[in-house]
Parts: sequence; structure tokens; C-alpha cells
Amino acid sequence: MTCQISISLDGFVAGPDQSLENPIGVGGMRLHEWVFTTASWRRQEGLAGGADGPDSDVAGEVAQGIGAYIMGRKMFGGGPGEWDQEWRGWWGDDPPYHTPVFVLTHHPREPLTMKGGTTFNFVTDGIEPALEQARAAAGDRNVSIAGGASTVRQVISAGRLDELYLHIVPVVLGAGERLLEDVGDPVLEPVKVVASPSVTHIKYRIVRPTHA
Amino acid sequence: MTCQISISLDGFVAGPDQSLENPIGVGGMRLHEWVFTTASWRRQEGLAGGADGPDSDVAGEVAQGIGAYIMGRKMFGGGPGEWDQEWRGWWGDDPPYHTPVFVLTHHPREPLTMKGGTTFNFVTDGIEPALEQARAAAGDRNVSIAGGASTVRQVISAGRLDELYLHIVPVVLGAGERLLEDVGDPVLEPVKVVASPSVTHIKYRIVRPTHA
Repeated sequence: MTCQISISLDGFVAGPDQSLENPIGVGGMRLHEWVFTTASWRRQEGLAGGADGPDSDVAGEVAQGIGAYIMGRKMFGGGPGEWDQEWRGWWGDDPPYHTPVFVLTHHPREPLTMKGGTTFNFVTDGIEPALEQARAAAGDRNVSIAGGASTVRQVISAGRLDELYLHIVPVVLGAGERLLEDVGDPVLEPVKVVASPSVTHIKYRIVRPTHA
Repeated sequence: MTCQISISLDGFVAGPDQSLENPIGVGGMRLHEWVFTTASWRRQEGLAGGADGPDSDVAGEVAQGIGAYIMGRKMFGGGPGEWDQEWRGWWGDDPPYHTPVFVLTHHPREPLTMKGGTTFNFVTDGIEPALEQARAAAGDRNVSIAGGASTVRQVISAGRLDELYLHIVPVVLGAGERLLEDVGDPVLEPVKVVASPSVTHIKYRIVRPTHA
């Protein structure tokens, strides 16, 4: 299981006051600006232009070799409670996943088949069954934890995350949703570092679930 | 003004439950283990052995070109309130500073001249006078903010820090004293990254005191 996520220098992966208009909170989009200007991300989105360089290389690398994604209900969106069947995610008809995606929810829903190979599957019995189903769907490719923070925390706490690739963005949000809170005391090892003027990418291997 | 400091992956520069026996809190020493094994730090301490490599290079680099230090009362130690005149810091007769050190305190005390060129000066009228005195003492060399967290935060908040060199240690402390809290919204730029299997060193230039 792997996860790659953009994080502020003070540890937030979303800003405060998340809302339908501002799904990653006030200032949260500042964490993602680095990727939108890369040639590699733009190609993945069917857009022209963008810059080559280390950030673009990383944006390409993190999209490779993934056979399934897991995400939380809030990241899929549509508000809490029973499903509005009209809601099909934030990403339009052709989401950027192109694999099965397992959405953690308390509310059952039939799978949604989108264009481009993305299928959203709704898992109501918790993180472990979601991990099992994603593992089976991914075959010999990786399972990526797409987010948000609470889903990543659950996977780390369960001792099931093998690799955490942080994109450390030099902004201070001051408030919002922290990634590394209530995750116990995992032992990590930096195995790859990529530097650019915009962001520092550090890939950690999680060596053991706890230090003690 | 510069600052270099070791920080956990979850943003703490000291662990919880700081005490006389455990001055940087439970687990806080895990943030500093990387430096104790470097050849360069050991040479500075008059010790033999240690390993060369990127961490040693950084440990050498951060000790160069400094003409004065500033530190908080808690970092100097000796407990709160009126001074115990017997207390001369944690570092013995020959502290590792070798320059004037300006200690922020509410309680006046005569300067302490130590071996090896270190003089502790006690400044009772706040951070700005301390910065001025340190600046004057340093001449054309740098002023380094030695710590702890609240002193660094004050200097960042005052818009007076030019460079923040973080040694990001891959441990999760879970609690303790955070560095980047209540510091406003500075704009930073990573200008140097040094990677090792133990720690990732990122030097940030503080471009502007606020983003807004």
C-alpha cells in the first residue's frame, strides 16, 4: 500500500473551513499548485503545455503502477448521509484514476462505472475489507491511498501502509487537517528525495508500524 | 538572522513532558541522534570518530560563520523565576557556542564568561533589543537563533528570520512543542536540500514575512 500527498510545512493536507465551494479548505489549493504547472500532470489530464523538470518527473512517477485506489467518503464528496444518486464525484465523466476506486462509506451504493476505466466501488464494512478488495483488484500493481487525511491515518494506524511519499510545500497554513496525528509511532526511512524550487518530495518507506 | 533546528516529521522540536531530567521532552532526543554520530560534530566537541557523509557535512556547515546566538530562557535552563547563580547552562565550562550568546529572560543577571569564547548575556527587554545586540556583536557574521521553539517563533513572527534550515527526522513524536505554530503566513523557498538515510535537511529562505 502506498500514499502520495501534498502537505504544508506545518503538517496540514487541507486548510480550515472545508466546504462544498472549498473542498480542501481555505488555502488548501496552495498545496497543489505545484502539480498543475507540470507537463506530466497536464498530459495526464489531456492538456497541452506545462513545464518539464523534477516536479513533472514526480507527478509522472506517482501515477505509474497503480492498480486500485482507496479514498474516504469526504474526498469522493456529495455531502454526508444517504447518497444523492446524481453525485458522481468531483472529477467529471472521466476521473483521473483509470482503475477501480474503493470509497469508504457508511451508506451502500451500487458501483459507478465511469469513462476511462475508473469504477467507483462503495465499501461499507470498514478499512480492512476495503484494503482486501483493493488488493485483489490491483493484481500485481500497487494500491494507492488517495486520501483524505483520515483515511490515510487509518491505514497507517492499522500498520498497513508501506510507503508514504510526501510533497512538502513551503507554505504555512496555520490550521486545517493534519496528516500525521493519532497514527502511533511508526518507524520511517527516507528512501528518495527530489528537490525543486517549489516543493521537496520525500519518499518514506515505513519500516515498522511502531517504534516502541 | 538564521536558525537551524531538528524537527520531527509531525512538526515537533521537543517531545512532551519537558523536565530537568528530560529537557527536550520524552522522545525529544530522537531528533538529535543523527548529529551525535557525525565526524564533524564529534570534532567540534573534541571527540574522536564518527562518520563522514552528508549529515556530517551539514553538521559542519551550520556551525560556520556565526558571530552570535540568541536563545530562550528555557533553553539556557536553570528553572523559571529568579536566577540560581550556580546555574551556568547545560553545557559545562566550555559550551559549544564560542561567541556571545544572548539569553532572553525576565530576570536580570550579570554576563557569564565561559571557556572557549562563549559569553552568556542576559537580555530583559525583549526580542528586538536582543536581536539588535546580537547583530552588533556578530559583526559581519550571522546571528543564529539557537532555540527553543518559542524564541524561533517570536523571531519568525517579527519578520526578522531570513533563513530556516530544518533537519527533518523521520520520527513521529505525537505530542510536544511545535515549531511552526502562530507564526503567521511566511513565504518560504527551499534553496538547498541534502538527503541521507537518517534525515532530510532543507534550507528555506524566508522570502516575505507574510503571504497575504
